[in-house]
Amino acid sequence: MENVYYARIEALRALMRENGWDMVILTGSDPHASEYPALRWKQVEWLTGFTGEAGDVVVTADHAGLWTDTRYFIQANKQLEGTGAVLHKMRVPEQVPIPQWIASLQMDEPVIAVDGLCQTVSAVGELRAAVPSAVIVPVPDLLSALWEDRPAIPSTPIITLGEDLTGESREARLSWLRKWLIRQGADAILLTALDQIAWLLNVRGQDIDYNPFVISYLLVTMDEANWYVQKDAFEDPDSETADSFRELQADGVTLCDYSDIHFALSSLRDSGVDRICIDESGLNYALWTALENGPEVLSVESPVSLRKALKNSTEIDGMREAHLEDGLVMEQFLYWVQQHAGSVNEWEAARYLGSLRAKVPGYRGDSFETISAYGPSAALPHYSTPSEGSALLEARGLYLCDSGGQYLFGTTDITRTVPMGPCTALEREDYTLVMKCHIDLAMAVFPKGTCGPHLDILAREPMWRYKRNFGHGTGHGVGFFLGVHEGPHEFRQNFNSIPFEAGFVVTDEPGIYREGMHGVRHENVLLCRSLGDNEFGSWLGFEPLTLCHYDTSCLELSLLTEDERNWLNAYNEKVYRILSPRLPEEVATWLHEKTRPV
Amino acid sequence: MENVYYARIEALRALMRENGWDMVILTGSDPHASEYPALRWKQVEWLTGFTGEAGDVVVTADHAGLWTDTRYFIQANKQLEGTGAVLHKMRVPEQVPIPQWIASLQMDEPVIAVDGLCQTVSAVGELRAAVPSAVIVPVPDLLSALWEDRPAIPSTPIITLGEDLTGESREARLSWLRKWLIRQGADAILLTALDQIAWLLNVRGQDIDYNPFVISYLLVTMDEANWYVQKDAFEDPDSETADSFRELQADGVTLCDYSDIHFALSSLRDSGVDRICIDESGLNYALWTALENGPEVLSVESPVSLRKALKNSTEIDGMREAHLEDGLVMEQFLYWVQQHAGSVNEWEAARYLGSLRAKVPGYRGDSFETISAYGPSAALPHYSTPSEGSALLEARGLYLCDSGGQYLFGTTDITRTVPMGPCTALEREDYTLVMKCHIDLAMAVFPKGTCGPHLDILAREPMWRYKRNFGHGTGHGVGFFLGVHEGPHEFRQNFNSIPFEAGFVVTDEPGIYREGMHGVRHENVLLCRSLGDNEFGSWLGFEPLTLCHYDTSCLELSLLTEDERNWLNAYNEKVYRILSPRLPEEVATWLHEKTRPV
Repeated sequence: MENVYYARIEALRALMRENGWDMVILTGSDPHASEYPALRWKQVEWLTGFTGEAGDVVVTADHAGLWTDTRYFIQANKQLEGTGAVLHKMRVPEQVPIPQWIASLQMDEPVIAVDGLCQTVSAVGELRAAVPSAVIVPVPDLLSALWEDRPAIPSTPIITLGEDLTGESREARLSWLRKWLIRQGADAILLTALDQIAWLLNVRGQDIDYNPFVISYLLVTMDEANWYVQKDAFEDPDSETADSFRELQADGVTLCDYSDIHFALSSLRDSGVDRICIDESGLNYALWTALENGPEVLSVESPVSLRKALKNSTEIDGMREAHLEDGLVMEQFLYWVQQHAGSVNEWEAARYLGSLRAKVPGYRGDSFETISAYGPSAALPHYSTPSEGSALLEARGLYLCDSGGQYLFGTTDITRTVPMGPCTALEREDYTLVMKCHIDLAMAVFPKGTCGPHLDILAREPMWRYKRNFGHGTGHGVGFFLGVHEGPHEFRQNFNSIPFEAGFVVTDEPGIYREGMHGVRHENVLLCRSLGDNEFGSWLGFEPLTLCHYDTSCLELSLLTEDERNWLNAYNEKVYRILSPRLPEEVATWLHEKTRPV
Repeated sequence: MENVYYARIEALRALMRENGWDMVILTGSDPHASEYPALRWKQVEWLTGFTGEAGDVVVTADHAGLWTDTRYFIQANKQLEGTGAVLHKMRVPEQVPIPQWIASLQMDEPVIAVDGLCQTVSAVGELRAAVPSAVIVPVPDLLSALWEDRPAIPSTPIITLGEDLTGESREARLSWLRKWLIRQGADAILLTALDQIAWLLNVRGQDIDYNPFVISYLLVTMDEANWYVQKDAFEDPDSETADSFRELQADGVTLCDYSDIHFALSSLRDSGVDRICIDESGLNYALWTALENGPEVLSVESPVSLRKALKNSTEIDGMREAHLEDGLVMEQFLYWVQQHAGSVNEWEAARYLGSLRAKVPGYRGDSFETISAYGPSAALPHYSTPSEGSALLEARGLYLCDSGGQYLFGTTDITRTVPMGPCTALEREDYTLVMKCHIDLAMAVFPKGTCGPHLDILAREPMWRYKRNFGHGTGHGVGFFLGVHEGPHEFRQNFNSIPFEAGFVVTDEPGIYREGMHGVRHENVLLCRSLGDNEFGSWLGFEPLTLCHYDTSCLELSLLTEDERNWLNAYNEKVYRILSPRLPEEVATWLHEKTRPV
């Protein structure tokens, strides 16, 4: 039987011949450069069967290639079997990115079709630089002609959040943005990032799995805020969405149809806009072409990104509440897991955890797909737990669970690695070294001006001394009932010049992974707080928002410093003190044992 | 009596009127963008009396300003008294750099004279960007008309270093550079940085205090190496310099007159050069104008900078030898200092230290001006010890001495802070926290790819926990009988993307400074070494080259971790083991006491 993806790639080639395209480039993202696209935009998956979170495809008359990174090599090779497409490895020393690969073909004036909606301006720019003779044809929704039953643009119920939850009204946020525009000497800004729009308008939807966003664009001028959004729900005047729309309109937000954004941009000058601010890092190529011959474009980093990261006191209160609820869920889950050692599998554990979170008032879904990984499974940092045939949680070794919830009042992200019974010396050592790293970053005190690449090493050096390391970042920003990943700050070695500030929320999640053996990761969400000023500077530090004990039974205590042990004991004591009055008695009793000082 | 500098500034104004210049800009550097200029180029000092190491001057018809940074505010205000010139503060939040200050004058087409020899291309570029209407007049040696008895361009004896010392012949280095040129598709490179020229040609001079450089330019093509240098010494065929020149000529180096470089650059095309590599970061404006209408200029980071930093095994052996000799000097000095508590002053101590170094065979001068600072003096990280009226080294508190030597076989840089007797609790705490920071960086283990801004925090976080900090970098590269400061690597928070590599030599010198009280700094020179590979990466670490004990008598031991104490004991034991057989008996006995484990 012919491979379905092979057939699809061949069908695309037929389309290419019809249109005179020498090649087609497709990306795994959406028109908003989202980290996770809705089903409609999983074009790479539809064409090749590859389900990884990052992958781009190039198809020529005689070649089909998938470009993805180290995380997905094994998976890609498996999923591409029989499709005729081959893997091109990225994030390896010998990598050849798409533009350079196309240049190496040395074609004269190749006609390259791209999905202008899902290709960013910068990606097209790199292509032009590498292949100056290329004729680039932007085709919106390029695959639509082939993709029967292609999912529509999602349009889920939209809710609004009041000032009681967000601490700041949309009028106040719009007013702040307009003041910022005045300082730039500009009279408009286009927001394309879905989390930024949701934050600014205090709206939430469910258009994308795990991300409470509304697929839309927002054009803010000095006296208008035009929201380009799917208006289907408006048809039913009794719906929650219709209520939300009415509230927004009352606050001066004009509802426009999602598809009208292109026309709106191409006629900006007629609307009196002379100078528009745009963050090109997330702008799709189709929108960019609509701006040609329009007003002057001022390329900026969207100010919403930083402002959104600086949580106000209401948001911080909400995040505390979310982490309290989430901690109660986690402790019940961990109690259950240890009760069921040897009798449940990874999938069942993930399901049980999900069922506990679902009972929390204000729960709005998980913040990402739960990673429930026993033993060797946990050696894959991005393990996807299969619903069938997942591994049994045995009564020995390590079980890793990385999960999080979306609540109306905040977003959580937590990883606990649980000793299920006797552990090997290596498991104990790795567990302890990751704990040292986690604690050393959490204990950090630093002056204003310190950035993520400076702090990152605090969660690495303790394991580096033992020549161990991990291949992912150490921590990412966390939204307030928004994306579980948000910038602009992060703990990572890559250059990032955003100084940490009081109000930033960030994860602290070092790990150690050993193929075929085990994986360890410890993750709390931290709040950056002011520690006062003195003659040497203005000082900042972290407070863990996450409330869930760390298991001390498989620690090699000799590897911890006194400061680290004190931190751990104080943290576990605090978790017990806050959570135990609200936990079922048998869980509280168990937790009391689990949080005895070491 | 009229202030001499006031008169000089007035004389400059007269020159400005004669020439129709609206303003003059002078810098504190030389035509090679050297960190330390020779006397001839201390134009700022001649004009204003300001002796700090960093300062630029702008003179207009009615204003004279000196731009310098935090290190020199007190000194500048004092030295500028009566000159009519005023201080403009740099490295402060409200700083207004020269280009922006000139722009703020809102002059229409101001005629600005700059010393084209001492102004870099990039500085002129910033000026043009800030004041687009400016007419910039490059005047080489602008002050010469006013400065009677201006020192000539220095021309000191030139020596060559053999392969026994450098481990690599100049032919090999030239050949490597030409291969690099081929890879760039270029046929020439101009070197202007004095340390790079000295390294490539294996020559040393004494043209600049503390820096064994020869003031010169080097133009390397595929078949020529033209050295533009002062040839005075060549007149005497029996001189050391004449021998050196003959050796260089035999190796294919052509000697040209220093001042001919401008003509050579302007006629490059005639010499068959089509594409020349230039590191514009250190190029002076006069040379840049000579390149106009010349060959294509490929702007590069000079490859010599990185290659020079990667010490070969012969250089490393030499550096070890230099640090052994320097350690013997330092231990004798520290013994003497403690014997003379209460009876010598800072200046006498510095003199005595210099006299000890001068006895070492192969000694070629100090590597910088010794900082000999007791008590409050040490609170200034760049304290300049006065020959008259320097402070007494009392039999209590802390004495800081930062010094280094140039030897034929290497360069040293060491700081010891010495408890002279009873110390206050704060002195002990600061001493110990700086020690923790110093040790934590020295103990670092890290994978290939790690850069200075990542590592820097290891020497800060331990004191940050106590909300203390220091306002200078943590460490700089050290040359092999070259500049005591050399790039491209450093320990500093500023962005620097050079990964550390085995063979790098770098200082580790955290500190704490308290105005009016005391200063602490502990400094060793470290060698970066390979620690082998494993599944997690290729590992690097440091070995201290410096051999001189750390005084443990004023440590607050409770602040040290076991690892830190072990490191310190092992280091002191090694110092004693290596040095004691070569020290006078009474010093060895004293050192035995001083290096007892804690």
